[in-house]
This record gives sequence, structure tokens and C-alpha cells, in this order.
Amino acid sequence: MTSAYDRLTERFSRIAVIDEAAAVLGWDAAAMMPAGGGAARGDQLAVLAGLAHAQLVAPAAADELAQAEADSAGLDAWHAANLRLMRHAHTRAVAIPADLVEAQARANSACEKVWREARNTADFSLVQASLAEVMNLVRQQAAALAPALGLSPYDALMDGYQRGIGAADVTPIFADYEAFLRASLPQAEERQARQPAPVPAQGPFAATVQEALCRRLSERAGLEPAHARLDRSAHPFCGGTPTDVRITTRYDEADLSMSLMGVMHETGHALYERGLPASFARQPVGQAAGMAAHESQSLIVEMQSCRSDAFLSWLGPELLATFGGDPAFYDPANLTRLWRRVERGFIRVDADEMTYPAHVILRFRLEQALVSGDLRVADLPGAWNEGLRGLLGVVPPDDAQGCLQDIHWYDGGVGYFPSYTLGAMAAAQLMAAARRAVPDLDAALSRGDLGPQVGWLREKVHGQGSLLGFNDLLQAATGKKLDPADFQAHLTARYLS
Amino acid sequence: MTSAYDRLTERFSRIAVIDEAAAVLGWDAAAMMPAGGGAARGDQLAVLAGLAHAQLVAPAAADELAQAEADSAGLDAWHAANLRLMRHAHTRAVAIPADLVEAQARANSACEKVWREARNTADFSLVQASLAEVMNLVRQQAAALAPALGLSPYDALMDGYQRGIGAADVTPIFADYEAFLRASLPQAEERQARQPAPVPAQGPFAATVQEALCRRLSERAGLEPAHARLDRSAHPFCGGTPTDVRITTRYDEADLSMSLMGVMHETGHALYERGLPASFARQPVGQAAGMAAHESQSLIVEMQSCRSDAFLSWLGPELLATFGGDPAFYDPANLTRLWRRVERGFIRVDADEMTYPAHVILRFRLEQALVSGDLRVADLPGAWNEGLRGLLGVVPPDDAQGCLQDIHWYDGGVGYFPSYTLGAMAAAQLMAAARRAVPDLDAALSRGDLGPQVGWLREKVHGQGSLLGFNDLLQAATGKKLDPADFQAHLTARYLS
Repeated sequence: MTSAYDRLTERFSRIAVIDEAAAVLGWDAAAMMPAGGGAARGDQLAVLAGLAHAQLVAPAAADELAQAEADSAGLDAWHAANLRLMRHAHTRAVAIPADLVEAQARANSACEKVWREARNTADFSLVQASLAEVMNLVRQQAAALAPALGLSPYDALMDGYQRGIGAADVTPIFADYEAFLRASLPQAEERQARQPAPVPAQGPFAATVQEALCRRLSERAGLEPAHARLDRSAHPFCGGTPTDVRITTRYDEADLSMSLMGVMHETGHALYERGLPASFARQPVGQAAGMAAHESQSLIVEMQSCRSDAFLSWLGPELLATFGGDPAFYDPANLTRLWRRVERGFIRVDADEMTYPAHVILRFRLEQALVSGDLRVADLPGAWNEGLRGLLGVVPPDDAQGCLQDIHWYDGGVGYFPSYTLGAMAAAQLMAAARRAVPDLDAALSRGDLGPQVGWLREKVHGQGSLLGFNDLLQAATGKKLDPADFQAHLTARYLS
Repeated sequence: MTSAYDRLTERFSRIAVIDEAAAVLGWDAAAMMPAGGGAARGDQLAVLAGLAHAQLVAPAAADELAQAEADSAGLDAWHAANLRLMRHAHTRAVAIPADLVEAQARANSACEKVWREARNTADFSLVQASLAEVMNLVRQQAAALAPALGLSPYDALMDGYQRGIGAADVTPIFADYEAFLRASLPQAEERQARQPAPVPAQGPFAATVQEALCRRLSERAGLEPAHARLDRSAHPFCGGTPTDVRITTRYDEADLSMSLMGVMHETGHALYERGLPASFARQPVGQAAGMAAHESQSLIVEMQSCRSDAFLSWLGPELLATFGGDPAFYDPANLTRLWRRVERGFIRVDADEMTYPAHVILRFRLEQALVSGDLRVADLPGAWNEGLRGLLGVVPPDDAQGCLQDIHWYDGGVGYFPSYTLGAMAAAQLMAAARRAVPDLDAALSRGDLGPQVGWLREKVHGQGSLLGFNDLLQAATGKKLDPADFQAHLTARYLS
């Protein structure tokens, strides 16, 4: 006779398999699908989401959970964590009424379409009403989740992306960073101004050659071609499934860093998926520990390793051999000046690692105010511009470069943004710990070898799945919970000394 | 209040959407997926198949069918046909016990794996036991379907690929063709021997240039890039969905015809899918009328049009302009000698259009004997070789070129083979009717323009979906049911005069 817990593992495995199908179809939509397939693809993804949801909210699932919890005394730490995560997923799923799920899917999809037009024309008024409706539904979603999870409404939204971290954790960390930035950014700019002007890129760099190089670097970092693909899409991402990871990038023939660093970023995500514990594949505990944890893995590969002095000292000559042209451009010192340039910009995804958190802090504050109702959607553009002025001293020339730049809110995604900066901070903390544990880490990087670092991450992060929460994972790997001091120390070393 | 028929259309739409997802994943597995994703993909496809099956066999579906049939008096011809096809699909699905469905999935998948090894090593003994198990289950499947459908066991299997055609229809047609071939093949060979020796291909023809040309020809034939892709796979096929068709081919740099004619073949399939009635999308009546009908559409484009004198007279100079080299190779008369060559070969997929039916006739006879039990699996290699000797006068040097060459039986697919030749015959019949109805059809082909022909097919075949059965579709389009005389007349004109 199968135990209730065994039946649950089958149920969650079935859900995961449906999610895998949807993940491949999502990748296909971005990387392969002809435009005319879009409407049908939307239906396919909606039906798969509905089928997965139905498995989770089925009455039998509640019975299995209650029985498995009653029988849980003998479960080891992994299975006990798995059962807790099953309960958590179930709690979230049943908390939201079916008609709200549908209303959100419709409103998000409609708003996202209007947003594209609004961004193209830099006209916030086009999307204001749609966004107001999306935010209205997000507030209902948060209100439904909050009591079920015992969290505040905003924290209940954050919990959907990174369990165990709430606004009360993030607020002081971000305030501290704001103070750090206020003091450090001018110093970094002064230091940068004193350096020689960088020799600009000597393109064109043929996209096909860039692609071959990106593939080689990604493989060198440990991403096996038998389990991964690299393709092109308008917006780079990592998708697919743990045994079949799909990463994408885009190529600019005038610029090497976008594709190279973009692919190494996605490779970091992909290595995390590849390194998840295979014995818990398709179970909640076998999945990544959250989006902040995921961002830490992309950023430790891209920002901590591939933009390090050590790695660039290896990469420069490789690039020269690959593309030819003026050796001065490929000089590692020149690459650091070009590819580690701080700048008070308007666009989050183009930001350097020092100013990036300011963009996140702005969104974190605004989205809390949108959820609480303290900020009306109509007042968003003004609040955005004032907020960026306060943080970075610059004001976007239009809303396309301001509050219209990111898809997240217009697609109903509220509570995600902090993950980017929590991930950046965790990456610095993990890098510091890896350096202590793996003495030859930087020597290996200076040979273009990420092996020692990735090996350490596999053990300390990837292989842990969701056994531990975000802070407990960091505690086990680095000896302390999230400590933003390591990130500030990293920036100080890289930009101020 | 929604009617039972409306609920059924929603149910079948949901099933079709799940099937669409599976179709894209199937394409991905062949054209994109890294090898390491294979195991997970198998699970994804199995779960999707199970979810679609569950929708069909749900108790509510039976209730809806009974109610909709009771209320069906007011349905027009399309909706009435749709309801009949829903009943048919339901009858097939519920006739087979769930444990037999599972046993077949397991046995077919296991046998297919062993078959690859057996074919690679030309060792039938490796796969004999697996094939016996597959055939044992196929017999159970046929025995379960036959009474439910009121058909013989073999016809119940054929019905899964082409409704409305059974062994009693096919047997005399094939006997007649065998007699035709016995008289005509030697004459065609004699005529061929009297012609000048063809100038062989002047390759290499770069795969990327072939691919661009294939894309252009496919688009010229009417396949819109907004709704279709052309990619590469080991075995060419047409997959995807009606608004997002995916065709594949492979390239041999020493040979142009494989990719060009292969792509035009798949384009014929793709145009059928694209031309299905959009107002019945995702409904049974909105789908292609069966596999013989589908083959007729690939073969009318490839064999009837693209290998015609008229089209080759346009294509030759196009190819010369694209690839350059000895003009003698590209001379249309030379291309007809090279690309319309009859040959008594061993391999079905390499066969010319005159000998191809012999390969099908062989399989049709053998698979009936396997289903009835008159032929034991152990005796298949000998029966194969004797059968081919009787039909074409040649005997394969080994089983890899004999009874191991096709995947169909080893994957549980019995009853499909006749569709290839029924399709070839229907293609000739449709072409003759199109020529009568569209006077400038050949003139257009001689300008490389398939427009008039495809336009006629859209109206007479594609846009009819499954409103009519195979013979009724031909009757409406050509004025008569399937009549093999048109195919024989086509071959006589092309190979004997």
C-alpha cells in the first residue's frame, strides 16, 4: 500500500512534469516560434497551468497532505523539508480563489500587451488604467495570501519568489546600501575619471563568432552540451528543465560584453539547475531555493568571476586571438575600464553592479506603496522620477526610460525586484567564502578555469536544492546569514581602491 | 446554460490544445533537444498523453455525448460531422482498457530502443522477442477495438490512421497495381536504359545555401514564414500545429534532390495543416481527413508538381543560378533522368514513385498476417525477403535493408502503411482533376508557381477538414471515389511514353 507521502511525491512529480513541458514551450515561444503561433501558444500555456493547478488543489491533495503530516515522524530532513514545501505550495494555491486566478491571467496578459505599445511610444497614459486593474487584482491576491501564510500582504507576494525573506529583512539592508552608495559612488566616479580613457571596442564582432565563443566559454564553465542549448532571443534568459537547460542571449556586433557576460550570467543560472539534487528531481525540495538564490548563482559567475581581474587577464588574449584588431582594446586593464564602468543611468538592465541596487531599491519602495495603496498608479511616473533623482541624482527623459522600462508590474509581478540585489549580495558573500575554502580559486580564474569555484557551488548551493531557506543556506555555506558587508567590501575593492 | 454539444466542443478543444503542446515538444525532441533531455521528454509526452486521454474517457464525456446526440436534430452538416467524430474518438478511447494502453506504451518504447540496436547491427534476433510482445499487444488492441467499431481487427487498426478505408478496399487496388507493375516496370526500365546516361550532380552543394533555397521554395509554394519554420532533423517530418507548422529536412552536400524534394513534400503536409478550416480549429471536424489524405497532399506537391516537366523546367535554371557548375547537370531533361529514376531497391523511403507501392503492398500483406497470427514474428525476415522477391525480384542482403528498415511495427504502428500508397493514388487523381479545373496549372508550374494548384487544393481538400470521409472527399473534389487508374495513367505518361 502506497503511503500518503508517496502519493504526494507522485502528485508533485506530475505537476513538475507539466511545468517542464510549459518551460520548454516558453523557451520555444521566445527563441523559435514564428509570430503567428503566439495565440495558440498562449492557450497551450494556460491549459498546462490549469492542469498543474488542478493537481495541486484537488481535494485528494489536501487529504494526502493531512495524512502525510500525521505520519511524518520518520521522515529524514530532506523528506521532511519536501513535505513542508508541499504544504506551502498547497497553501498558496488554495488561498487564491479560482476566479481571481483567471482574472489575473486575463488582466496581466491584456496589460502586458498595452504596456508594449505604451513603452514604444513612451506614453504612460495608455497603460495607466490596465496597470490600475492589474494592481487592484494584485492587492486582492496579496490579501488572500497574507492570512493563509501569516505574512503581511507585500511579504506574501515576495514569498512567491523567495521564501523566508520579507520587507523587514530587506528595508534596513537597502537603507544601509543607500548610505554606502551616497558616499561611494562619487568616489568611484572620481577614481574612474582619473583613469586613462578606455580604448573602445574595435568591432564589428561577427555574431556567429561571438556565438561560438559564448558556447565555448559556457562549456568551459561546466555546462555540458548534452544537457544544454544556447540560442538567441530578444531578452536573454535561462529556461528549460534541469536535464535540458535552454539559455539565450542576443548579439550586438559592435559590442562583445553584452553577449559574453550575458551568456556567463545565464550559465550561472543554468549550472544551478544542472546541479540540483537528481535524487529529488521534480520534488519541491529538489528545486532551486528561490529567486534570490538563483540570482546569486548567475551573478557569482558573471560579476564575481567573469568580470574579475583574474578572469579578464585570461579572457583578453583569448578575445584578441579570436577576433583580432587593436591589441590595446583587449588589454585586460582596458577591459576592466570598459566592462566595469560605473554610471548613473536610467535603465536597470544596463546598470553596473554598483548602481544596480539603486534601481532595485526604487522599485522595492514603489511596489510596496502600490500594494498598500499609499501610491496611486496615476502618480507612479512622478514618484519614479523623484525616487531615481533621490537615489542617483538623475531623472529619466521620458517614461519609456522610467517607469515603463520593466515588464514585471505590467505582468502582475510584484515582489520580485528585491531578489536581484539580495542575489548580488549573496554572490559576494559566497565568493568570499569560496575564496577562503578554495585557495587556488583566483589562480584558476586567471587560467579561465571556473572549475574550482563551480565545484564549491555545486556542493554548497546547487546540490542543496531547497533543503534550507535562503538565510540558512548562506549560513551553512558561509558561516553567516545574509551580510551585505561582503558586497560592499567587494565593491570597495573593485571600484574604490 | 451551455448545451452538451458546447461542453463537448470545449472538451475537445482542451484535448487539442494538450495535443498541440505535445506536438511542439515532439518537434523539439527531433530538431532541438540535447540528447540528455530525452528521458525527461519521454515523461512529459507520456503525462500529456495521459491528461488528454483522461479528458476523453471521463464519465462526463460519455454523458455529454449521449445528451448532444439526443439534441442533435438542429446541427448543420459540419457540427453533425463533428459530433460523429467526437463519438468515434470516444469509442476508440474507451474500447481499450487503461492497463493495455500502459502496457503498449511501455512495450512500444522498449521495443523501439532495441530495434535501433538491431537495425544498426542487422540482427533481427535481438528484437524478435520485443516485437513479438508488441504484436501480441497490438492483437489485443485490435481485438478490443474491432467489436466497438464494428470492423475486423485489422481494419480497426487501419481506422486509427484513415477512417473509412479497410482491407477489402485496399486488397483489390493493390492486386491491380501489382499486375500493372509487373507489366510496366520492365518497360520503364527499358525506356530508361535507352536514354542518355544522366550527368551526375556537381556538388558539393553547401547545406546553408540548400537551406535558404528550400526556405524560398517553400514560401513560394505558399507556406508563410509567420506561421512556419524549417529546421533540420535526422528524419524529415512535418509537425507543430496549424498556426505554427514545423517542417524539417536533412542536407546531403553531394545531393540536392533529397532536401529540395523532401522540403516540398513536407510543405505539402504543412499547407494542408495551414489550410484547415479555422472556424473549426481544435475540433475533430477541423482536422485533416486522415493519413492517406495527408499523404496525398505531400505527394501532390512533391511528386505531381515539383517533379513535373513543367516545374523542373523552371527549377533547373534556378538551381544553376544558385549553385553554378556544369550547366549540363541542371538541364531540365537531365534532372528528370536523375530525379525520376525507377529502381528495384530495398529501401521504401528511397524508392521512386513507381516501385514505392510494391514496398507498401509487401508491408500491407505481412502486417495483416502478423495481426491474424498467420505469420509468426520469427518467420518475418524470411517472409519479407520472399515477398520482396515476388514483387520486385530483388532480395535484401541483410535484415537492416529488409524487415528492420522501418520503425512502424517496432513502435506498435500497424495499419499505417497503406496510407502512403492510397495517398499517392489520390494525389494523381486530384492532380488530374485540378488540371481539368485550372487550365493554366501547368503553365504556372513552368513559372515555378504552385499558386493555382495550391489554391484549388485549399478549396477542395484543405478547407474541408474532416467533413467528408476519404472517398467522399475525393468524390466531391474529382467526381469519383478513389480510382487507381489516374495513378497508373500518371506513371504511364511519365515513365512509359
